[in-house]
Amino acid sequence: MTTNMSVKSAPERILMAPGPSNLHPRVVQALIAPLVGHKDPYFLDLLDETADLLRHVFCTRNAATFALPGTGGSGMEAALINVLQPGDTVVIASAGFFAQRMVDICERLNDVNVVVVPGTWGQPVDHDVLLEAVRQHRPRAVAVVHGETSTGVEQPLAGLADSCHSVGALLLVDAVATLGGVRLPVDDLGIDVCFSGSQKCLSAPPGLAPITISDRALAAIQARRTPVQSWYLDLGLHAGLWGPDHTYHHTSPVLSLYALAEALRIVVEEGLEPRLARHCLHSAALSAGIEAMGLEQFAARGFRVPSVVTVLAPEGVSALTVRTQLLDEVNVEISAGLGEQADSMWRIGVMGHSAQRANVMLVLSGLEQVLSRYGYAPRGSGTSAAAAVYAGATA
Amino acid sequence: MTTNMSVKSAPERILMAPGPSNLHPRVVQALIAPLVGHKDPYFLDLLDETADLLRHVFCTRNAATFALPGTGGSGMEAALINVLQPGDTVVIASAGFFAQRMVDICERLNDVNVVVVPGTWGQPVDHDVLLEAVRQHRPRAVAVVHGETSTGVEQPLAGLADSCHSVGALLLVDAVATLGGVRLPVDDLGIDVCFSGSQKCLSAPPGLAPITISDRALAAIQARRTPVQSWYLDLGLHAGLWGPDHTYHHTSPVLSLYALAEALRIVVEEGLEPRLARHCLHSAALSAGIEAMGLEQFAARGFRVPSVVTVLAPEGVSALTVRTQLLDEVNVEISAGLGEQADSMWRIGVMGHSAQRANVMLVLSGLEQVLSRYGYAPRGSGTSAAAAVYAGATA
Repeated sequence: MTTNMSVKSAPERILMAPGPSNLHPRVVQALIAPLVGHKDPYFLDLLDETADLLRHVFCTRNAATFALPGTGGSGMEAALINVLQPGDTVVIASAGFFAQRMVDICERLNDVNVVVVPGTWGQPVDHDVLLEAVRQHRPRAVAVVHGETSTGVEQPLAGLADSCHSVGALLLVDAVATLGGVRLPVDDLGIDVCFSGSQKCLSAPPGLAPITISDRALAAIQARRTPVQSWYLDLGLHAGLWGPDHTYHHTSPVLSLYALAEALRIVVEEGLEPRLARHCLHSAALSAGIEAMGLEQFAARGFRVPSVVTVLAPEGVSALTVRTQLLDEVNVEISAGLGEQADSMWRIGVMGHSAQRANVMLVLSGLEQVLSRYGYAPRGSGTSAAAAVYAGATA
Repeated sequence: MTTNMSVKSAPERILMAPGPSNLHPRVVQALIAPLVGHKDPYFLDLLDETADLLRHVFCTRNAATFALPGTGGSGMEAALINVLQPGDTVVIASAGFFAQRMVDICERLNDVNVVVVPGTWGQPVDHDVLLEAVRQHRPRAVAVVHGETSTGVEQPLAGLADSCHSVGALLLVDAVATLGGVRLPVDDLGIDVCFSGSQKCLSAPPGLAPITISDRALAAIQARRTPVQSWYLDLGLHAGLWGPDHTYHHTSPVLSLYALAEALRIVVEEGLEPRLARHCLHSAALSAGIEAMGLEQFAARGFRVPSVVTVLAPEGVSALTVRTQLLDEVNVEISAGLGEQADSMWRIGVMGHSAQRANVMLVLSGLEQVLSRYGYAPRGSGTSAAAAVYAGATA
């Protein structure tokens, strides 16, 4: 075998899909710091610092706060399988692709009763129907997606934890699309297990799953009658690695953690409140531009998560083709839909370091140009409408 | 919260523990290529190339050959849980820490009968006893560790697959410590599932688990009566992501895969045979030096894996303290033992880019200097003995 001597260089993309987002130059720099061993005192100190930074971003005092060595999906699976035991019931609010993944994970478990509270894609799951299911089934756990990346919908969480705790249930929340970009005060909301991904609003490279576990949930995990079915995702073992004794469990992805720590430092330096406001601003500008062009959003008004803007493709326009054209012509990546919506909608990320005025303008102008080829006549100028939002914000 | 403005720089270590090993400068460079999305055509081409490179290094034609988004331990768990179903029996050859991890993983499974064929740490598991257990139990799978990182022992594999296949069992092999550094022709040996880690003899950053799955094993996985208990580690889903359709499963750790691909290109450019020979040479030099000093190896002669040299600490010397002194004084990392051997032995890696003459000399001279403080009088010069090996190799 000979290697291809003309290895292609990676293209420079503006990443406006809902993850991964572009990296801050300091995060890139962090990746090439010297690699040390996973038991190096320098690295163990970095684990401690990273846990502190994550606590800040999750707005929690949970001791068990760390990053799993896997993608956001590993955090989802870990949350569910550590809390659920044979004979348990779980209630899952499902109105999107990622909620359905939770159902998939739970249906693989041995003797777990999975109750799905269905909703309409593009809407949140009805809060009262969800509360009623919790009262009725008195489950071991209730699982919801905070920001559904497949639909752009934000699920209201206020009051949910009280209902869960009143029947002895733990509240698990998927914050893959929201942590660091959308308000999610874990302790104030009473969330028991909250997991995310490194590559979205935090703008670290993909491959790590930040997670935080309440003392209540950790005690429940430690009191299990049966071992967690997975050694790799056993949260008790991860808590031991990240705890004061740093008990060996796996060889940490050291460089990925360098990068995550730097990305979290940047979050803290920007300030969580200004960062959330920044996500809201660019999301509002993008939304205004989209609507000025006469395009419709998929997510219901009033329930749109700032970090993912979902847009219906006009009749006769292939969302997948337009996505490819934007990528090829202006190096801007947005996503098409997931599942049934694959070819009929776009999902545009407003996440982390990618959430910048120039990038919002590039997406809007790119869409204007490409759509004009399909005979789509925008009602108005998307970029002008976005500019007006920015002008208002600084006025 | 304010970040620590005096963030410490990572120290520059010579990584001579059994993983992670030092990165080639080209691998470092690969990490900072522009991040693209996980569905970018550039990245999908890179997946294809990486799979080809992995097939070369595994010496296999298996279509299902890829890298899991997790550490070597995720590969171990994936291999076991995909192949085993409720009611199955697994035979595990166990004479070390990592074999015992396989037992731990299997004991968590629902209704799987775990038969442990025990051995003595420092020795391979007796080949005939293992074959007899396979004949007797006719298991669904037989799991062995090729190179046991905790003991430095290489388990002989010749003939094992035939015995497994004759009773309908699949052969699973842990090559975490050996892939890319120790001879392991997967197809010739008849191995059905072989998994490894990115950070050892391949010298990519830690965080990925290369794995290859025979057509026989993949068919068995696809014919399961029950779903794989894990969504995250469902090998059928990973095969779909890495197959011609690149079906979405998770957000790939893009930058880690850039680095793995570059590390694999370097393996191919060096040539697999020269690379294996290089590992043997530096391992022989290190062993000669260790023995010239009068130190004893832990692994039995004749069964020593080239990539991990295990050395007993002399009476009255704390292996952990010496490890720390080498790290603090000369920035060289070696490992202490695992489990009961934690303070009584060292484990020295001879892996990938770290397997260099200068590094071997640094370990030997460092040990000589530190041990002299404890009144240990070496029988002879470790560095001279190692130099003699190198001189003989070039004579």
